[in-house]
Amino acid sequence: MITTTGGPQPADFADVRATNLAVVLRYLRVNAPCSRAEIAAATGLNKATVSSLVADLIDRRLVRETGLTERRIGRPATMLVIDGSPYAAIGLEINADYLTAVAIDLGGERLLSWRRSFAGLSSTPGQAAAAVAALAKRAVGRVAKEGRQTLGVTIAVPGLVDGEGVVRLAPNLRWHDVDLRSALRSALGNPSFPVSVDNDANLAVLAEQRYGGYATTNNLIYLTGEVGIGAGIISDGRLLRGERGYAGEFGHLLIDPTGPVCGCGRRGCLEALAGISALIARAMPDSTHDGTLTDLEPEVDEVVRRAKGKDPAVLAALEGVGRDLGHGIATVANLINPEVVILGGYFVRLAPWLLPPAQAELTLRSVAPDEGGTRIVASMLDHGAAATGGAAQVLDTIDSGILPTP
Amino acid sequence: MITTTGGPQPADFADVRATNLAVVLRYLRVNAPCSRAEIAAATGLNKATVSSLVADLIDRRLVRETGLTERRIGRPATMLVIDGSPYAAIGLEINADYLTAVAIDLGGERLLSWRRSFAGLSSTPGQAAAAVAALAKRAVGRVAKEGRQTLGVTIAVPGLVDGEGVVRLAPNLRWHDVDLRSALRSALGNPSFPVSVDNDANLAVLAEQRYGGYATTNNLIYLTGEVGIGAGIISDGRLLRGERGYAGEFGHLLIDPTGPVCGCGRRGCLEALAGISALIARAMPDSTHDGTLTDLEPEVDEVVRRAKGKDPAVLAALEGVGRDLGHGIATVANLINPEVVILGGYFVRLAPWLLPPAQAELTLRSVAPDEGGTRIVASMLDHGAAATGGAAQVLDTIDSGILPTP
Repeated sequence: MITTTGGPQPADFADVRATNLAVVLRYLRVNAPCSRAEIAAATGLNKATVSSLVADLIDRRLVRETGLTERRIGRPATMLVIDGSPYAAIGLEINADYLTAVAIDLGGERLLSWRRSFAGLSSTPGQAAAAVAALAKRAVGRVAKEGRQTLGVTIAVPGLVDGEGVVRLAPNLRWHDVDLRSALRSALGNPSFPVSVDNDANLAVLAEQRYGGYATTNNLIYLTGEVGIGAGIISDGRLLRGERGYAGEFGHLLIDPTGPVCGCGRRGCLEALAGISALIARAMPDSTHDGTLTDLEPEVDEVVRRAKGKDPAVLAALEGVGRDLGHGIATVANLINPEVVILGGYFVRLAPWLLPPAQAELTLRSVAPDEGGTRIVASMLDHGAAATGGAAQVLDTIDSGILPTP
Repeated sequence: MITTTGGPQPADFADVRATNLAVVLRYLRVNAPCSRAEIAAATGLNKATVSSLVADLIDRRLVRETGLTERRIGRPATMLVIDGSPYAAIGLEINADYLTAVAIDLGGERLLSWRRSFAGLSSTPGQAAAAVAALAKRAVGRVAKEGRQTLGVTIAVPGLVDGEGVVRLAPNLRWHDVDLRSALRSALGNPSFPVSVDNDANLAVLAEQRYGGYATTNNLIYLTGEVGIGAGIISDGRLLRGERGYAGEFGHLLIDPTGPVCGCGRRGCLEALAGISALIARAMPDSTHDGTLTDLEPEVDEVVRRAKGKDPAVLAALEGVGRDLGHGIATVANLINPEVVILGGYFVRLAPWLLPPAQAELTLRSVAPDEGGTRIVASMLDHGAAATGGAAQVLDTIDSGILPTP
């Protein structure tokens, strides 16, 4: 794919070939099984080019032939499919109360999906890195037993990550300047596959674009519904990262100057009002959690149970949280004009109560007519979205025509 | 240039040629005069390709030869330059208190720059369209007298503009659903060149990218400093438009729920506190302007005069406006992580007093370390930025390798 940051670059042969490999892979991912002739007809590439590209893909075991299919007209054609079996992409997530691991093959099949409770707030960065590395090793080992080569490992973190994989700031883990990538590479024995670290919301929105309900949407925002609330922003089809990669700090929008103190030290931030810990505290002030919870799931279960039972205090709290979320969403919608804003993480289960007040607040605060076309929806992915996005990021490299060595 | 919205497209011959024409034009724009051999060496294109591309550009009178230059080694080479003489791109701006027109040639030379007072608030859309059309006709006529063909006309408007050139909403002009492009095309006698309408901030940031002090910056935001405050956002080198083109509604960020009523009908919006009319009212509550001013320049002159005289009330007001601006800038910086935020329009002259409190507020409210690298600066372009951007948008089409018919 020819990128043009900072102006057009000459189109040379290697670029064109990578672009065309990407075109064939993407076509196969959506339309397989199909023949070389169908690929040529659909993409506008000539048949000799398609044959040469497909030969490359077969050599690298990304595509395989499935035998002949009788066609109505002409000779039987050899059909092609994406070969899921030789490779796996691995994604992991560290969050304040859990770790997850996901492995996905090139065909899009999820090979494993694990979740562990994890005391993020009471662990040191070293303990966290060791716990993630242990989980990553187990995932690499598991896919290796199936004869799969690991294409790469990407770790999602709820914080600001620089281009070198250093976590500059993760308030809800209480991390400052943690070189997580180096720690993981070394804990994994400096593997030959790439190890990356990225922001959880950025990876989750990539997962939404690839596997979620909004794969054809070019302007979407994913909001993590965890202790913190991060935004992953795709604008005009591309992840918006900003100058140093710190875009998407949605949770620290000022909503109420008289509101509670946030993990970042400021007062009245959105996540201090609508993050999942804040939501539990607002919905169940009788709850006794002490801020070092290792798993918020049972508490969210209880909020859902009381909401279904029409507990007026819980319904009022969810209404308030929904309005605060809508306020924040209106701010970002006025600035970025997305088509969909996707509530993720714990928000998914609470969406029946959060969506109506959030949408009403968006309508109230939108400058553009008809809310600029922006809709708020619940994610169809589960808590594994960020880890799934980690695996998707690994697969995106292949999809862009940069192939693994055979 | 091969764009890949919605996934990679096959790279065919026409795309490659347009990409390569764009590469040659851009190289010439920065480095001319230079020879075909230099272009080949610098771009990596082979000499035969460069000769063929240059022949095309000369045919269309975009490039011309300037005779031979003696070189230290080898034969004298024919030098090439961008030919500014045959074409002109025209940009216009409608704002609440003025109209501007700018014409620029392909070499980047400004051929004309006009400014007229204009009673935007007390004019009907029809009157505004007639006034702009009259100005556009005079500009087209002026460049035609110099033997120049008009490549296109783009009009900047302080409001939400859809893809068809309809102004859906412009609160500070009190416009709703005004089909400005059709009105202008018809008033101009349905010309053969394209007529476009776009948001003023979007066009101004394109001007900053092309002619301003931040041409090599890939992440920049331009804030219009007019009665309204719009944001033009360039992220990773590309203008961020959003799903329906309504991105950048910066002026309606909620800053103070108890603040004054805004032109949009809501309370406490940034532009109701820091837009130029609001700024004048805060700095000079004794001022008698009645909201239908046709030119705010004399009032801004007076604010500058009093600030230079260290009038404590004016200095306090500018400090407050700067802080409110900084609050809004911190919000957008946390979400988008720009490298520079450029204060434009009337803010340029007030920058000495606005920048320090704005930067302090940004520091206070930034989540990222070191403000994520975001700096606030004053534009080096004058009030013509949006009109200049209109002309730049016309020239961008040529630069992307889509050439005018010879």
